[in-house]
Amino acid sequence: AHSLHSHFTLSPSTASVDIEGLRRQIEELASFSDAPGPAVTRVLYSDKDVLARRYIKSLMVQAGLLVREDAIGNIYGRWDGSEADLPPVASGSHIDAIPYSGKYDGVIGVLGAIEAINVLKRSGFQPKRSLEVIMFTSEEPTRFGISCIGSRLLAGSEELADALKQVVDGQNISFFEAARSAGYPIHQEDLSSVFLKKESYHSFVELHIEQGPILEEEGIPIGIVTAIAAPASISVDFEGNGGHAGAVLMPARNDAGLAAAELALAVEKHVLESGCIDTVGTVGVIELHPGAINSIPSKAHIEIDTRDIDEQRRNAVINKIRLSAIRIAENRGVTLSKFKIVNQDPPALSSSSITATMQDAARQLNLHSKPMISRAYHDSLFMARISPMGMIFIPCYKGYSHKPEEFASVEEITNGVKVLALTLAKLSLE
Amino acid sequence: AHSLHSHFTLSPSTASVDIEGLRRQIEELASFSDAPGPAVTRVLYSDKDVLARRYIKSLMVQAGLLVREDAIGNIYGRWDGSEADLPPVASGSHIDAIPYSGKYDGVIGVLGAIEAINVLKRSGFQPKRSLEVIMFTSEEPTRFGISCIGSRLLAGSEELADALKQVVDGQNISFFEAARSAGYPIHQEDLSSVFLKKESYHSFVELHIEQGPILEEEGIPIGIVTAIAAPASISVDFEGNGGHAGAVLMPARNDAGLAAAELALAVEKHVLESGCIDTVGTVGVIELHPGAINSIPSKAHIEIDTRDIDEQRRNAVINKIRLSAIRIAENRGVTLSKFKIVNQDPPALSSSSITATMQDAARQLNLHSKPMISRAYHDSLFMARISPMGMIFIPCYKGYSHKPEEFASVEEITNGVKVLALTLAKLSLE
Ligand SMILES: [Mn+2]
Ligand SMILES: [Mn+2]
Ligand SMILES: [Mn+2]
Ligand SMILES: [Mn+2]
Repeated sequence: AHSLHSHFTLSPSTASVDIEGLRRQIEELASFSDAPGPAVTRVLYSDKDVLARRYIKSLMVQAGLLVREDAIGNIYGRWDGSEADLPPVASGSHIDAIPYSGKYDGVIGVLGAIEAINVLKRSGFQPKRSLEVIMFTSEEPTRFGISCIGSRLLAGSEELADALKQVVDGQNISFFEAARSAGYPIHQEDLSSVFLKKESYHSFVELHIEQGPILEEEGIPIGIVTAIAAPASISVDFEGNGGHAGAVLMPARNDAGLAAAELALAVEKHVLESGCIDTVGTVGVIELHPGAINSIPSKAHIEIDTRDIDEQRRNAVINKIRLSAIRIAENRGVTLSKFKIVNQDPPALSSSSITATMQDAARQLNLHSKPMISRAYHDSLFMARISPMGMIFIPCYKGYSHKPEEFASVEEITNGVKVLALTLAKLSLE
Repeated sequence: AHSLHSHFTLSPSTASVDIEGLRRQIEELASFSDAPGPAVTRVLYSDKDVLARRYIKSLMVQAGLLVREDAIGNIYGRWDGSEADLPPVASGSHIDAIPYSGKYDGVIGVLGAIEAINVLKRSGFQPKRSLEVIMFTSEEPTRFGISCIGSRLLAGSEELADALKQVVDGQNISFFEAARSAGYPIHQEDLSSVFLKKESYHSFVELHIEQGPILEEEGIPIGIVTAIAAPASISVDFEGNGGHAGAVLMPARNDAGLAAAELALAVEKHVLESGCIDTVGTVGVIELHPGAINSIPSKAHIEIDTRDIDEQRRNAVINKIRLSAIRIAENRGVTLSKFKIVNQDPPALSSSSITATMQDAARQLNLHSKPMISRAYHDSLFMARISPMGMIFIPCYKGYSHKPEEFASVEEITNGVKVLALTLAKLSLE
């Protein structure tokens, strides 16, 4: 059996994706939404999230997978291989959706993985290593301000386990209360039961829309992700005395808003100083208090996002930003009342062996592919901590994501499902 | 009678201010508020404003003044002089209060003027020129976004009359509807009936808290205002393409937020370039859209306030700001979608003759005084268009204003009332 399978291949003709089924599933899943279509709002442990989870489990069961859930609701669907004691090959993504976003982010990595299993079953494939589909809990930070709760905890983050004991949502509901209301009656001491050991998986592959314009612009159907840039988030507060815009003369001022403006420009400067195209930094939030035209800002809050595929280079930028914040506060006589690195996850490299396998699979299916960097993060960023990892990107309309206009055609999704299926088959036989 | 009066004086002993009465009036007036005490919220033509107006009219009547109102509710209380056909001497201020502000801004200029009349009456003074107390309608821009509606219209602003025909408040209520609900059933064509001719008053004097810290810090009871700085307000919008903070690389960005940050710093630079201490400029509002940590700002709105006592110098700063906004937009590839000078009132100088009279009055009352500039604007800024003008400042706690902590002691107010009374008496006899 082994020698037979190691020669397994899917040809463009034998890889039969159920295009109509996939189209219907995307629409059905999108209907579990707290926003009117085409927008999707599906927040962790909400009633709509519970219905969507039930739907995913039913698709897994229909695909003949053995379904289990862990304590926080990561859902696993397993197809036992002939050597079921070997570490399995896994694929998956998320189905939660930030308010008023779209139908494809995460979703095609879950529905696509289930359909890849169906493709392999229809083709007569028999796995050696078991194959698993994983639906991760809460990739988006919507409800508790923490991204990738499922994959991060699964990868053994004690830091996250501690944080989950503290957090509440906007309605002051704790993580545990929320989980209970969704049918996951966990207690603090159960969180570590979600952790998986480093050898748990042979490999992990995630299918995802690009969330950028490159593949569409270049007309390439498959992106092979070689690295995932990871964001660091920084929250900064400056405080000064404020005062009346007419009454306080310029030498007497310590304007928190101008300190924020200077820091925003310093962020850009330090990012450009890196000299590398992969270093990016953004000030997406500047809030001034009291925010009146005739008041000198007495408080300024700014939020900084900086990313790179090289952790040291990104952290060097963070350090420069910190020094600038201190210097600006000194020069302006304002107080730097907060400089908090909210998160600072390390970037991840794809496994070169998985990358090669994905490229082979695309080639055998006559699909052009292109190595690229994922500049958004994904559950794969955390799966990389416990498993060799790879990601497959497909084009999406204008690179749009996180809005109702997000779109990928079923043809593009089908290409991704085929490459995923063949990749999983190849990895299963390793 | 004339020669008798020209030697009239008030000594520290003969100037008898009703301290308890003044204290009670301040508290009673503060009780007409839509915010719980000590905060005061009293918005133009609201029920509380109507009650406060009734209260002021009753105090005028008790003081023996002849009360009339114009079409928009400027209230005049008149004490006829012996030569009642001469242009009268006037004093007054406003009683409207921005949300969650204090008890003293404007109020002591109205209650203080009425009490100054009472002081003069108790001292046996007989005016030659008539004396008038004026309560101006809506000095604060709270309801319709326009400051000094009463004094601006009274001073003959056709521009304001046109604007009032267009404006609505936050509930879409027009100025005329609002006025009608407060008992002023005016029509568009009645607005010009409020205009006063240039020779209507011999002089106008306003008593006001300093709204700055100088008098308190220096322990000086009386400020003699020599000039009122006038603000220009500028509203600016930048627009760019926005995008994902991870996916859009630095060279592809046109970040509206960074354009706003650059302009904020340019405002400061251009103000400092004036080289004069009286030039100030403030960016009190910066708003970014969509305002998320992982989104490049696609829109930035900023509001700029710049003031000077020299109009040309202030307008030179405005021009530099405009050129910077254009240059920044070009350099960053963003669109300068709005650069609107919302208002640009000329500054005003006090009458040197009134200034000298106020200084004499303070000296005769054994009160130290100090010439100073009003860096906040007041109804006096507009009264200066039709009358020689002067202002008397008294200290206020820490320079606080526009918040519940705003405070001036009855002793400090009493000093101001005495100087005002003697000044009005002297001007009446000119
Ligand atoms: Mn997402
Ligand atoms: Mn996603
Ligand atoms: Mn005010
Ligand atoms: Mn005032």
